[in-house]
Amino acid sequence: MKKALFLILSISIITNGLSQKVNKEDSTIIKEIYNTSLIDGASYDWLDYMSNNIGSRLSGSLGAELAVKYTKEQLEELGLDKVWLQSVMVPKWTRGGKEFSYIETSPGMTTQADICALGGSVPTPYGGLKAEVVEVMSFEELAVLGKDEIEGKIVFYNRPMQADLIQTMGAYGGAVSQRYAGAEEAAKYGAVGVIVRSMNLRLDDYPHTGTMSYGDTPEHLLIPACAISTNGANYLSATLKLQPKLLFYYSMNCRAHQDVQSYNVIGEIKGSVYPNKYIVVGGHLDSWDLGDGSQDDGAGCVQSMEVLRILKKIGYQPKYTIRVVLFMNEENGLRGGKKYAAEAKRKGEHHIFALESDAGGFTPRGFSFDANDVNFNQIKSWESLFEPYLANWFTKGGSGADIGPLKKEGMVTVLSGLRPDSQRYFDYHHAANDVFESVNKRELELGAAAMTSLIYLFDKYGVK
Amino acid sequence: MKKALFLILSISIITNGLSQKVNKEDSTIIKEIYNTSLIDGASYDWLDYMSNNIGSRLSGSLGAELAVKYTKEQLEELGLDKVWLQSVMVPKWTRGGKEFSYIETSPGMTTQADICALGGSVPTPYGGLKAEVVEVMSFEELAVLGKDEIEGKIVFYNRPMQADLIQTMGAYGGAVSQRYAGAEEAAKYGAVGVIVRSMNLRLDDYPHTGTMSYGDTPEHLLIPACAISTNGANYLSATLKLQPKLLFYYSMNCRAHQDVQSYNVIGEIKGSVYPNKYIVVGGHLDSWDLGDGSQDDGAGCVQSMEVLRILKKIGYQPKYTIRVVLFMNEENGLRGGKKYAAEAKRKGEHHIFALESDAGGFTPRGFSFDANDVNFNQIKSWESLFEPYLANWFTKGGSGADIGPLKKEGMVTVLSGLRPDSQRYFDYHHAANDVFESVNKRELELGAAAMTSLIYLFDKYGVK
Repeated sequence: MKKALFLILSISIITNGLSQKVNKEDSTIIKEIYNTSLIDGASYDWLDYMSNNIGSRLSGSLGAELAVKYTKEQLEELGLDKVWLQSVMVPKWTRGGKEFSYIETSPGMTTQADICALGGSVPTPYGGLKAEVVEVMSFEELAVLGKDEIEGKIVFYNRPMQADLIQTMGAYGGAVSQRYAGAEEAAKYGAVGVIVRSMNLRLDDYPHTGTMSYGDTPEHLLIPACAISTNGANYLSATLKLQPKLLFYYSMNCRAHQDVQSYNVIGEIKGSVYPNKYIVVGGHLDSWDLGDGSQDDGAGCVQSMEVLRILKKIGYQPKYTIRVVLFMNEENGLRGGKKYAAEAKRKGEHHIFALESDAGGFTPRGFSFDANDVNFNQIKSWESLFEPYLANWFTKGGSGADIGPLKKEGMVTVLSGLRPDSQRYFDYHHAANDVFESVNKRELELGAAAMTSLIYLFDKYGVK
Repeated sequence: MKKALFLILSISIITNGLSQKVNKEDSTIIKEIYNTSLIDGASYDWLDYMSNNIGSRLSGSLGAELAVKYTKEQLEELGLDKVWLQSVMVPKWTRGGKEFSYIETSPGMTTQADICALGGSVPTPYGGLKAEVVEVMSFEELAVLGKDEIEGKIVFYNRPMQADLIQTMGAYGGAVSQRYAGAEEAAKYGAVGVIVRSMNLRLDDYPHTGTMSYGDTPEHLLIPACAISTNGANYLSATLKLQPKLLFYYSMNCRAHQDVQSYNVIGEIKGSVYPNKYIVVGGHLDSWDLGDGSQDDGAGCVQSMEVLRILKKIGYQPKYTIRVVLFMNEENGLRGGKKYAAEAKRKGEHHIFALESDAGGFTPRGFSFDANDVNFNQIKSWESLFEPYLANWFTKGGSGADIGPLKKEGMVTVLSGLRPDSQRYFDYHHAANDVFESVNKRELELGAAAMTSLIYLFDKYGVK
């Protein structure tokens, strides 16, 4: 035991010794990267344009098309070695006219509720839908109630995100099945509609949309699904306790269309030593339609563009080919991520590292890594380089949705996701208040700098 | 070398061994503390009342008086062992009617500028003041220009906060002398007034006030000092390059009054083992007058109150007497902090630990400590307990203005300041946008929980 411990300690000393030597020059370059982002950054201005001149960018929308055009032009202005569009067919779903809904406690006694259609939902019947409501906290509770209690009614999923979880992504993970599969599950028991408590840790009036699936539900059994604001959910729940027979009315005009042509936007700096090995950094260009998608994921897009801009600006010549990819259709299809991976597979483009930023433009706390132990040990030896920037929380964990398919195709060695502070993310996520003003310039720039620094280290030291 | 290293490593193993044993029960209590703050917290509601029902709380104002009354009542409701007011005379300075100013490039050609009086400034002469402007970046530059270039003119200090510093407090420290001593320095060369670029890293239209001093300047030589918004400063600077002879006009109605009676608000839980030894936690109850002081320092006040509430809520019986002190007059006098320390000295109340929260209600990153090596080593052994909450950045450094006098009087062993994320702090600091909406509930609550956890550890393990 003692001998093993000593061995471990000795290795740790040697590793520290090495990383100390490495750190000196690396820390200088990383400081230069941070200075460039904070003093002379482009990310915030790009985001301003995307958010305020273009706006929301739901797949298949005019906004998405304009964002493809704009970001391609901006990448071209950076003087990269190559900029191109990668064709991808995407689903198109439109919200239509604004949703309307109310709670009716007795004939003529109505109170408005703040709802929005979930992405992918069918519309309500013409003239809207009115029915009794059954509140449940879980699919288990739904199953216990069964067809007798559910048939002909609207199911109201009201399990809140868990406030005591420090990582809000975990709280999202614990609640989002209600949104994603709530309609499919409720339809099994003959429900006529679904209301889902918004994925939001705050109490406010914003309904939060997001993707949903009907699974294998036959088309004639599809039921309309909406999100209700957290304030609205609390109000509905309290009112149900007073008046269990209340009626909920809603009208939604959303619908799905034929797939349309769209694109991933890609730019690259050719590697000087390994031009046919790749490092990729990206975010997703599409957004939901309620806000302007500044946090989700305008921030990740402009940070990823900024990585290549900074590397050029400081005159760094990468060994590997470094690509930025602005993925299309992360929100409701992941078609862009799948297409990029399929093309990489087809062309035999192996990626040593893929980095995604899709958790908001907040102060970076660090990164999570999908890597084997050997590579993770190397990565951990870089932590101290990020200490002065308080971005040194390096953990093993997931990376990102858009780079996931690269792993599935076996075309990447190490994957990572930027981990910004997560406390405010769900205040804005998929809601009308996900707007430019919610992004702080310095926080955004610190994220871009952390990402550039990490890409620099992977390019310099490679992977095992 | 090797032997010494082995010794250090051995000690480190032993220490780790001990702290591992300790951590198990401590981590359970700390989890309970966090759960209480996040699920069943009072801090956000208190802040809501202070900010939205009371508003700004400049020393000597009605708001300050109402805040004393409100917080005393709230502490009384917690069932503490003792709640009282500590009398303290405070300076009173009022802004008067809104300031007005413009830039005049030629007769009749004027552009409005966003300014506010600095705290403690004399007013402009009746009817306002109009003069040419000399822009400088430092006191050194001022000295080089000398009386010939300065006399009869308004000095415009335009050195920005340094954007490349990661800790924004450091950037503030590098720029704030312009605000604090700018008038005193300019008066030496016969300047008639002073304009200071706001202490703000953003570009926006908010002027940021803050305290200033005339030092030993004779009364007949006092000149009016204002802050200009960062956008205004950039505009004035650019216009000066085109038209160096432009005139700047401003009118301010501020003035100083006689000192008035006010109070520190204090509550305590009596220690079960060491009732005459103290742990204190606090923030300052006064604020500037432009916003409602939610970040500076309503947040610190309600977090400090929350520490005692949580300890009672979870049924923790402290060994030491634990006090919350809401200090009056931090902003323009520090009279409350000085009074509390003087009384502690007079009564021989030794404090083993003093903690201050006065850096905004943002996600906590950790704490800085003013402690000797022995105590700091003990503190460092607690870091891992804060890792799950990402509040484990423990450094040596300053603590806080209000607890500083305790150290000066020799009445405290270890001092600490909460270190929240600092990126957004100067967006709001001393400006009209320091309002309730700028505080995120979870971020505030995480700070209160981190503070409570630290107080718990100091109470349990004491100091050397």
